[in-house]
Amino acid sequence: MISPLLTDLYQLTMAYGYWRQRLHEREAVFHLSFRHSPFGGHYAIAAGLATAVEFFKNWRFQKEDLTYLRSLKNPAGTPLFPAAFLSYLKKLRFRCDVHAVLEGTVVFPHEPLLRIQGPLLQAQLMESTLLNIINFQTLIATKAARVCRAAEGDTVLEFGMRRAQGVDGALSASRAAYIGGCHATSNVLAGKIYGIPVSGTHAHSWVTVFANEKQAFSAYAEVMPESGFFLVDTFDSVQGVKNAIAIGKQLRNKGFDLRGIRLDSGDLAALSIKARALLDAAGFPNAQIIASNCLDEYVITRLKKQGAKICCWGVGTHLVTAYDEPALDGVYKLSALRDEQGEWQYKLKLSEQTVKISHPGIQQVRRFFWDDAPVMDIVYDLVCGIPEEKPELVSMDATVQQKLPDYDACMDLLQPIFVKGKCIFKNESLAVIRERALQQVSQFLQPPYLVGLEGNLFALKKRLIDNVKKNS
Amino acid sequence: MISPLLTDLYQLTMAYGYWRQRLHEREAVFHLSFRHSPFGGHYAIAAGLATAVEFFKNWRFQKEDLTYLRSLKNPAGTPLFPAAFLSYLKKLRFRCDVHAVLEGTVVFPHEPLLRIQGPLLQAQLMESTLLNIINFQTLIATKAARVCRAAEGDTVLEFGMRRAQGVDGALSASRAAYIGGCHATSNVLAGKIYGIPVSGTHAHSWVTVFANEKQAFSAYAEVMPESGFFLVDTFDSVQGVKNAIAIGKQLRNKGFDLRGIRLDSGDLAALSIKARALLDAAGFPNAQIIASNCLDEYVITRLKKQGAKICCWGVGTHLVTAYDEPALDGVYKLSALRDEQGEWQYKLKLSEQTVKISHPGIQQVRRFFWDDAPVMDIVYDLVCGIPEEKPELVSMDATVQQKLPDYDACMDLLQPIFVKGKCIFKNESLAVIRERALQQVSQFLQPPYLVGLEGNLFALKKRLIDNVKKNS
Repeated sequence: MISPLLTDLYQLTMAYGYWRQRLHEREAVFHLSFRHSPFGGHYAIAAGLATAVEFFKNWRFQKEDLTYLRSLKNPAGTPLFPAAFLSYLKKLRFRCDVHAVLEGTVVFPHEPLLRIQGPLLQAQLMESTLLNIINFQTLIATKAARVCRAAEGDTVLEFGMRRAQGVDGALSASRAAYIGGCHATSNVLAGKIYGIPVSGTHAHSWVTVFANEKQAFSAYAEVMPESGFFLVDTFDSVQGVKNAIAIGKQLRNKGFDLRGIRLDSGDLAALSIKARALLDAAGFPNAQIIASNCLDEYVITRLKKQGAKICCWGVGTHLVTAYDEPALDGVYKLSALRDEQGEWQYKLKLSEQTVKISHPGIQQVRRFFWDDAPVMDIVYDLVCGIPEEKPELVSMDATVQQKLPDYDACMDLLQPIFVKGKCIFKNESLAVIRERALQQVSQFLQPPYLVGLEGNLFALKKRLIDNVKKNS
Repeated sequence: MISPLLTDLYQLTMAYGYWRQRLHEREAVFHLSFRHSPFGGHYAIAAGLATAVEFFKNWRFQKEDLTYLRSLKNPAGTPLFPAAFLSYLKKLRFRCDVHAVLEGTVVFPHEPLLRIQGPLLQAQLMESTLLNIINFQTLIATKAARVCRAAEGDTVLEFGMRRAQGVDGALSASRAAYIGGCHATSNVLAGKIYGIPVSGTHAHSWVTVFANEKQAFSAYAEVMPESGFFLVDTFDSVQGVKNAIAIGKQLRNKGFDLRGIRLDSGDLAALSIKARALLDAAGFPNAQIIASNCLDEYVITRLKKQGAKICCWGVGTHLVTAYDEPALDGVYKLSALRDEQGEWQYKLKLSEQTVKISHPGIQQVRRFFWDDAPVMDIVYDLVCGIPEEKPELVSMDATVQQKLPDYDACMDLLQPIFVKGKCIFKNESLAVIRERALQQVSQFLQPPYLVGLEGNLFALKKRLIDNVKKNS
């Protein structure tokens, strides 16, 4: 259960400010989106919604949370939050509407992944926690999809726990990596909590416990005859393969088999080719060669080009930390607020960089298809709507303007999840989410894919920018 | 509380194997160390011990853990673990000795940060979890120390939660960043759990809620007059500073003050110089300028060179994810095991890379001082001991051999933490740990610092390598 205190302090000081200014119940709309696709790719895979749903469901300030908040002081020593505000927090229950893109969906920069609509104070207080959850899981699901694409259908095992960024850095990564296409994890707790298949045999330490490698393999085969996998690089990989073959023959005599070996160091291409030849010559053509050691999509692609005879990839550190780009740049922006008369006022934040100017409105994303293939995504405003016929769109960087091509189907990506604080969303199984990701990734292999703002929303945004510049 | 299932599956299959081979009670010694200092630096700052201590204290397989383990199957469908082994796990209590380097200590590659000595099965089962905890916190404490060095005594605030790697990626990072020298965090939950000072005022969303920036600042000053900080870049940073000054004058009239402004985008050097001039001219020479936006030690150093008038640095993503090197390469290796006769057999893992060959023995690190300044660290074996006078040492890459220089004091870095599973360590306050880190970092500013294996241990290691090569 994630505490409502897992937030930045300024969310709480702003909440107090809204409350003092009697703005706390004003209906507000925030969207969560990211600005750049990670790893030089052109999309991301949405992940983390189920974790966010649990957070919303259990969002409640506990007694000890309020005790802590009461202890915080201004520089002058006065209480940061008065008692009346803390009493208000105590009674607070989540009452927002939430719309979200389903996990496993391919998404693009500037598209809303979540829309939160409800009392300003509540919607504001969701920001930091939501970003923490969605940024990381989306990042790792995306990384995993890239690794699995590079593996071209081979099995990919996630082995990253030991170098993940903390306990949840490991757990959430295992979940997201599975969504992105990995087949199993070494993380037993992730297996228990999320029902992900778990995988693992033995480490170097097993081998070093025994007098020599052959004794170690023999002992392992004795107690785990059905495992049939051996890590061969503790002392010398080629000798290790030979030892594995010797024990594999004994296993076969007992009605079991040598199922495979794991290489964990050295020139994986050359060693795997050598190992394959040794295994084949010894009558073990079905024994698998697993490889691990600082793998990622780039290394796997290179090894495949080098003709590596590897059919299963153990990917750890570089996957679970998204080593080459360890953070997604998700943001959460206010885009509409009702005024005293109850009219929507659209909102944005300016920036010298066009790409950092936020989008106003109450947004939805519509994905258009032709013959089951996606042809375009349009972000539109629910109040402006979207023209029935041939809507125009303007690309997110405002450089391309074009009409929607022919389509025969469309769907809105943001689905209702909470209505007035009540969850109406039935949790999806990870298998369903993973299947969605695999299917969608196969649909978006070829960039570029056109994503843009619906023409009316673009015009509205332009007017708003001019207005803000005039008034600021 | 960290579950004992937060481990890699192969730890449990090996544990089962040890149990079946009646090796599970054999006394074993493992060490945790890292191979490379992160970020191109020459040291790291040990962190994470307190979290590991809690893990050891609560290490117990719960009923539902065993239920889950019972559900795991071999490929052929038979149970992975028989019921008798699960009953054994159920009764298991932590009985190891633990020695560890205190948090906040400056440590070097190949030095043991922890030594676990006890029943082989138990010591083995600690590996993955310990690496997860220690790798990450050590990484972030080290990164924070670098950022704080670059800030040259300025205040450094950790703002990273929203882009941290999961819930604990944020929490543990806040803790470790504080150890490494940060002054406060924005993470309220980290404040509550660890007693770290929390910091924060308002975000862009506060400004966009109001009709214009001046109204927003005015409203904020009204409800938070003691805060006196304004984020000025929502629309235009220079205009924002002018608005902050206008509201600052009103605050002063009411007996408060403009305490400072925050810049969050644009050319931070130029904007801060401009802002400083405006603030000074308006009679606010004490108003602080805080900066944020993708800061790290390199950017801070560059901004200082450019003459930036910034006295407080909000550092987020690049700190809490250790963006340029998001994992520490910690390993956990078996180094000694008693044989059937109760004699110690020393152990190591080979590798084609010298640096990846593990060190045998039951290790301790002795740090030697001259006039309170550290002069050398020597890793030695408790059985071989260390010569009283002028011990020889061999550098970790086996290239340098030399005698210990003069010294007038020494201390052993590994301290007793658990004896036969009983914790004898009194938790240190974060303030004490942080002070240690600050003090030690100031002692190790100038690389290189000589660290090596004690001569007898080095000779023993060489003999062992030859032996292993002969027998494998």
